[in-house]
Amino acid sequence: MRPMIQRPRGTRDFGPAEMARRREVEQAMREACARAGFGEVMTPTFEHSELFTLRSGQGIIDEMYVFKDKGDREMALRPEITASVVRFYVNELANLPKPMKLYYVGNCFRYENPQSGRYREFFQLGAELVGTKNAETDAEVIALAVNCIRAAGLQDYVVRVGHIGVLKSLVREEVKDEKTAADILRMLDKEDFDAMGDMFDARALPRGLFDRIVTLAETRGSVDVLDKLEKSDATEHLREVFSILKLHGIEECQVDLGIVRGLDYYTGMVFEIDAPKLGAEKQIMGGGSYTLSELFGGEPVFSTGFAIGLDRVVLASEAERPKEPYAPVDVYVIPAGDDMRKYAFGIVARLRSQALRADVDLMRRSLSKNMKYASSIGAQFVVIVGKEEMAKRSVTLRDMKSGEQRLVPADDLGDEIQASLK
Amino acid sequence: MRPMIQRPRGTRDFGPAEMARRREVEQAMREACARAGFGEVMTPTFEHSELFTLRSGQGIIDEMYVFKDKGDREMALRPEITASVVRFYVNELANLPKPMKLYYVGNCFRYENPQSGRYREFFQLGAELVGTKNAETDAEVIALAVNCIRAAGLQDYVVRVGHIGVLKSLVREEVKDEKTAADILRMLDKEDFDAMGDMFDARALPRGLFDRIVTLAETRGSVDVLDKLEKSDATEHLREVFSILKLHGIEECQVDLGIVRGLDYYTGMVFEIDAPKLGAEKQIMGGGSYTLSELFGGEPVFSTGFAIGLDRVVLASEAERPKEPYAPVDVYVIPAGDDMRKYAFGIVARLRSQALRADVDLMRRSLSKNMKYASSIGAQFVVIVGKEEMAKRSVTLRDMKSGEQRLVPADDLGDEIQASLK
Repeated sequence: MRPMIQRPRGTRDFGPAEMARRREVEQAMREACARAGFGEVMTPTFEHSELFTLRSGQGIIDEMYVFKDKGDREMALRPEITASVVRFYVNELANLPKPMKLYYVGNCFRYENPQSGRYREFFQLGAELVGTKNAETDAEVIALAVNCIRAAGLQDYVVRVGHIGVLKSLVREEVKDEKTAADILRMLDKEDFDAMGDMFDARALPRGLFDRIVTLAETRGSVDVLDKLEKSDATEHLREVFSILKLHGIEECQVDLGIVRGLDYYTGMVFEIDAPKLGAEKQIMGGGSYTLSELFGGEPVFSTGFAIGLDRVVLASEAERPKEPYAPVDVYVIPAGDDMRKYAFGIVARLRSQALRADVDLMRRSLSKNMKYASSIGAQFVVIVGKEEMAKRSVTLRDMKSGEQRLVPADDLGDEIQASLK
Repeated sequence: MRPMIQRPRGTRDFGPAEMARRREVEQAMREACARAGFGEVMTPTFEHSELFTLRSGQGIIDEMYVFKDKGDREMALRPEITASVVRFYVNELANLPKPMKLYYVGNCFRYENPQSGRYREFFQLGAELVGTKNAETDAEVIALAVNCIRAAGLQDYVVRVGHIGVLKSLVREEVKDEKTAADILRMLDKEDFDAMGDMFDARALPRGLFDRIVTLAETRGSVDVLDKLEKSDATEHLREVFSILKLHGIEECQVDLGIVRGLDYYTGMVFEIDAPKLGAEKQIMGGGSYTLSELFGGEPVFSTGFAIGLDRVVLASEAERPKEPYAPVDVYVIPAGDDMRKYAFGIVARLRSQALRADVDLMRRSLSKNMKYASSIGAQFVVIVGKEEMAKRSVTLRDMKSGEQRLVPADDLGDEIQASLK
């Protein structure tokens, strides 16, 4: 025999039980997006690699799957989808009425060593609201992210909302050397206060500034923590966002002024959601307000968006509640003998036309082996088509949980099963 | 301004209206699969390129996007998904109870010059039934393909069912030289009878055989055309398949013995569906019974499957019935002034929690500009939140089609709109 071909390292195959769970989570989030007036868009799986280096810097090249097109242009499998949506907006949607409310669901690729919770192909659902910037827009986008997470059934999650302006303006005001300022912000993004302290010492920066930065970065809690800070546009904006979130029925958000998010194009509100049960890989969502369109050749336009890691949401949901047993069908139809086989095909076709998930023996198994098979796939009902029943245009309907069985006219079968499933 | 970044040649961006249509078609087909007891699987977007060359021959390398992994292994973006599903089966599912009924929806990639109806990234929905081979299995798979096409709303389509054995056994019996036999089958797959005639002349093959081959290959019509042929296992099998299809409520199939399908691993029944409105690119589905698992290192196992081209089904459905106008929301909420803004956010949040697709002004527009915007996005209802209404905990509900408007208590708003939408 030939050696088996394996799937590529760091990728996954999903079987029916897992896919059912994943689609359920995805579908619930889609509905949350649709209810908030967001329309779905889809962009190509690969793009000119320039799109992603413009957004994220040259460093991302090493983390992408890159290949040459027939025209010798460098392409990359997308590491994220925001850049593509903004490109699409710049190319084709810029003249439509604002705001544009767009969402997407898709696969992304990361060329790194596989580890727990991180895969080379992974899935994101995200949304971008393009064309406006104010507190109600930020609240709208945060509310959508939270409603997606709620729709997925998660209960144990933490929403942290901050404002890039608080720390950035402090650092940019007090640190005149641009490289040093950038270094500080990078260390803040990694929450690496030790390294930052060392750098302050090495470059003889004022220790008082270090303390102020750390205090701000560690400011977390209910919206009242803002009372302790000097009033600024950023703090007043956050207050307003929190007050509108309350009107949206969202009261579980915390302030976290330590959220910096590495990339330069964030302009104001930034937010993250964690699922604490996931440990080190607990962040399941990240977002904020940004301007990106001019990088891709468009007019500047304010945007606010987020991306949810679907894989991690599914993991978190499985950590919270056990998987329900997966059953591919509601009802399995068994011909009691070869003479009844064709009659059984008609029965199953009719059940399917009544929107029931129905299957029928295709292996020509014996009645007892078919009963075992029906049980192994978790069918809730079995329909046995016997000779006598067939003569009466009836079948035997068996409830596999209770073991009860009774004769049912073939014409009533679908209705009877549907009534029992409810 | 920077130059715009374009999407890669031969790929597409889909906006909300188009995505709504595509998801509707996809969802209808998914439901058809689920009703027939098929469970969804998902495999990686790229695979070791060997997987596809083993299935389709080295020639496919030129038609694939190929790149090197970090481990210097050659990877390819999948040109189709059957090979991946069979690999998954061989790797992990081979010991589960048979039959395995699996379906998938995914994107595939073809590295060729873009042309009408053919894209470098395209979408397929397919199904594979693994573990059995008989007439009822073939009928089950054909019925599913037809039910998918019906679920997508297509009415103008042609289902052609053949059997690879009829032509293959004739050619293999009568033509002892293997290369010549393969050449004939390749020309049959392309329906290039002229080239085949020339080859018969050049290689001094019997003209009578040519005529018999062409007659068989042109045998098409209702199942009765089989009466004119010599009885064989293949013709009897097809008769049985057609008789079971009738029990499945599928009576629109034709016999077409000219279907050869290029690849060697087809073992019996083969079938195709065309949407004649699409012209040269009219084939929207192809499938048949095959054995492929041993190529990938597994035990031999009979399988039957098909793949539907989702892009072409969407094109065909648009050719049959005009697109319905797309509206992202059912209801648009307008605060008549700044004082009513916050009250409006509460109203919209409540409508969304009642599963309505609802949006609210985020641009701080005037009432008249908001009315224009609501009209431009096709909102069916507008809710106006005015000062007096607010005082009475009421709002004005306006039907945008009829222009009628009336005062509605805020508590009843969701129910009233839902009743009107039905």
